[in-house]
Amino acid sequence: MQLILLSGGSGKRLWPLSNYARSKQFLPLLQAPDGAKESMLQRVIRQIKESGIDACITIAANNQQKDAIENQVHDKITFVQEPERRGTFAAIALSVMHLALEDKISPDETVVVMPCDAYTGKEYYSVIKQMADTVDNNAADLVLMGIKPTYPSPKYGYIIPEFRSSEVKEFRSLGVKEFVEKAEIKDAEELLKEGAYWNGGVFAFKLGYMVNAVKHYLNADSYTEFRNKYNLLPKGSFDYEFVRSAKNVAMVPFNGEWKDLGTWNTLTEELPDNVMGNAILGNKNTNTHVINELGTPIFCNGLSDVVVAACPDGILVCGKKVSETIKDYADKLINRPMYEERRWGSYQVLNTQEFDDGFKALTKTITLNPGKNISYQVHHHRSEVWSFIDGEGLFVLDGKVTKVKRGDVVNIPAEHLHAVKAITKLTFIEVQEGGPLIEEDIERFPFEWIL
Amino acid sequence: MQLILLSGGSGKRLWPLSNYARSKQFLPLLQAPDGAKESMLQRVIRQIKESGIDACITIAANNQQKDAIENQVHDKITFVQEPERRGTFAAIALSVMHLALEDKISPDETVVVMPCDAYTGKEYYSVIKQMADTVDNNAADLVLMGIKPTYPSPKYGYIIPEFRSSEVKEFRSLGVKEFVEKAEIKDAEELLKEGAYWNGGVFAFKLGYMVNAVKHYLNADSYTEFRNKYNLLPKGSFDYEFVRSAKNVAMVPFNGEWKDLGTWNTLTEELPDNVMGNAILGNKNTNTHVINELGTPIFCNGLSDVVVAACPDGILVCGKKVSETIKDYADKLINRPMYEERRWGSYQVLNTQEFDDGFKALTKTITLNPGKNISYQVHHHRSEVWSFIDGEGLFVLDGKVTKVKRGDVVNIPAEHLHAVKAITKLTFIEVQEGGPLIEEDIERFPFEWIL
Repeated sequence: MQLILLSGGSGKRLWPLSNYARSKQFLPLLQAPDGAKESMLQRVIRQIKESGIDACITIAANNQQKDAIENQVHDKITFVQEPERRGTFAAIALSVMHLALEDKISPDETVVVMPCDAYTGKEYYSVIKQMADTVDNNAADLVLMGIKPTYPSPKYGYIIPEFRSSEVKEFRSLGVKEFVEKAEIKDAEELLKEGAYWNGGVFAFKLGYMVNAVKHYLNADSYTEFRNKYNLLPKGSFDYEFVRSAKNVAMVPFNGEWKDLGTWNTLTEELPDNVMGNAILGNKNTNTHVINELGTPIFCNGLSDVVVAACPDGILVCGKKVSETIKDYADKLINRPMYEERRWGSYQVLNTQEFDDGFKALTKTITLNPGKNISYQVHHHRSEVWSFIDGEGLFVLDGKVTKVKRGDVVNIPAEHLHAVKAITKLTFIEVQEGGPLIEEDIERFPFEWIL
Repeated sequence: MQLILLSGGSGKRLWPLSNYARSKQFLPLLQAPDGAKESMLQRVIRQIKESGIDACITIAANNQQKDAIENQVHDKITFVQEPERRGTFAAIALSVMHLALEDKISPDETVVVMPCDAYTGKEYYSVIKQMADTVDNNAADLVLMGIKPTYPSPKYGYIIPEFRSSEVKEFRSLGVKEFVEKAEIKDAEELLKEGAYWNGGVFAFKLGYMVNAVKHYLNADSYTEFRNKYNLLPKGSFDYEFVRSAKNVAMVPFNGEWKDLGTWNTLTEELPDNVMGNAILGNKNTNTHVINELGTPIFCNGLSDVVVAACPDGILVCGKKVSETIKDYADKLINRPMYEERRWGSYQVLNTQEFDDGFKALTKTITLNPGKNISYQVHHHRSEVWSFIDGEGLFVLDGKVTKVKRGDVVNIPAEHLHAVKAITKLTFIEVQEGGPLIEEDIERFPFEWIL
């Protein structure tokens, strides 16, 4: 069995904690059974393992999410990199072709596609097994998960089964009478009366079935060729492009806990504490949550149903009931990320300054994990000063390697090749000067590290 | 005429914007007539000038407020430095003795003492003139300002005049029947029925009268001697130590606008805009104010009667009606100031880090105003790296002077003497390393700058 996890999401609705590099599924806010914090992605992967599902996991994501996935997932997974954001149909097509053409998986193998940010209980995974069984038994070509709806939502798609599950005594799956991609609230009320289910975004099928379907859209002899033509795939959702016109479709209903933690309102319901980070709640607050990733202390009092979320990218103070409105303002609020986790460690922007003549300065604190290095690189528009404040490492300037440690300072003029590798965990303060000060002012070169 | 402005205040109730160095009277939040922002102190000094009062101004304040006063007040004033916080009686006594013994002012000259943080209209200054006239005419030894009360407040003292002002057709001042230092709400209600006024904390008297009174508490031949014995003065308020037992007291009533902008609730009523600084208010807020002195953007929505105030010292999110509760939590919230204005410029702490072995690093951005310098100094417990990012200056290390400019970097090991003087406005990033990283790790030496 093959599991494809779709890691999408621009994360605007969980601003400021989420951004293009750190979508909501990577926020380490949930409580793991061992008391540590875990992200939605980590929770899903843990739950898959705990459920006993024996499957290879493929994660489809864009390149900006690659470092976050590598840092958070330590199990063996296959990473399928989407060349651009192009909707769920394209992402599923790419993953399916990777399985077929790159991993050489048998066309007869069952594939389950699922989102990586559904907040569910363990019964969800029993239903996934049931969906896979339905495909294995050739009972349907495409099997959907139907979520028992709790209210007439305009946000989800609807599945109307051929029979109400109450009308059928014993069943593994129900035939699908109709598939509705999205419904207005009024129509949704009618659909609920008809016994419709929400479309949970979980799909099961045989690999060969989907490969054949994808080939109608785009054919290629190799995965590389397919990926290079990615921009020729339709931009729509899998629901719109494929499910609504598919034949021989079945549904397995899921009646357990299922939440979309995509807004602060729903996410805060699942947080283990009202306060995370450096914050004090006074004694006159009601149902108020504070998440502070800044060093600066926060004090809240006299608030009711409010979420406060602060990190280097921004500070949100929002009534929970209107937390969805963030996305309407996000474009005005989102700038370059001020904090990023990378494969080599993390950085935080501490300060930016621009002077009358347009000259800019940007100060960062950077931490490299032991054994990790940043690439051998040159900047054309800025010089850098690094003050090492902790750890030991190797520093390269124009090919010359020197050992650096706490207390050392190095100057890196523009146009000079440089790199650094951590021996122990290495922390330094970087002052960039010049302009424009953007992550893109970088040219990378190969370098052979000999420790 | 002599005016003494009392600059007190710990500023806990306006946390995080106020701290021990930046009391509420220094916050540049109010709107000046020219459209610029001004502080309460700047507003009072502007109003004094506009009122045509011809007086020398003395400001009594503690040493930590000295730089803020110098930066904000560009008129000629006399600064009387209180050796310690010791209540209003001691502060007034010190100022009076400074006028008599240091400035050699005639005992016959009229002195008016006033707070520097009352928010009033210009009629307030007409009343002050009337109070001075009453003293000039020898109609009373001590003249108080009575503020027409608007509600029975437990926060203010009360003055009961001999006659209700409505009973007297024409008057310059009213005799005082009783002086109540503070009243419970219930008693205050009774006092209001009796025609009592709030004590506005404005006092007029002849210098000689008060010098004689002070000598009963503490006598000295010189101002220096008096100041050295400051700790022998009683700690109480001027009201308690002096006014309540004074004879021949009169009151001039003031019926105009008078506000104590000492809490976020009252202060925000006078702010010119709902947003100050980098913040966006969504369209679902009511009576909500945001003051953001951070570079990090703030987004607020769905809030009602809330104040959000953010600066490097902290972030407040508080229902306006409970904004007084801050003072109960302030001791937990107040750390070292993260931003300070000094006589030479300003600094902001950008980041602090502590490592497993106790080693610390602290990063600042520092700006020196043109022509200003920091003292020639040595640190025993830390080294510093300065990256100059704008301007030009002279840098001294162990007596050797070099010119520094944008792009230069200097290393200052612990125990090495150093200083810097700005030629043009000079900005640099400082990385301190070692420990403990406190402002007190400094020893200053004389240095003769030759430009």
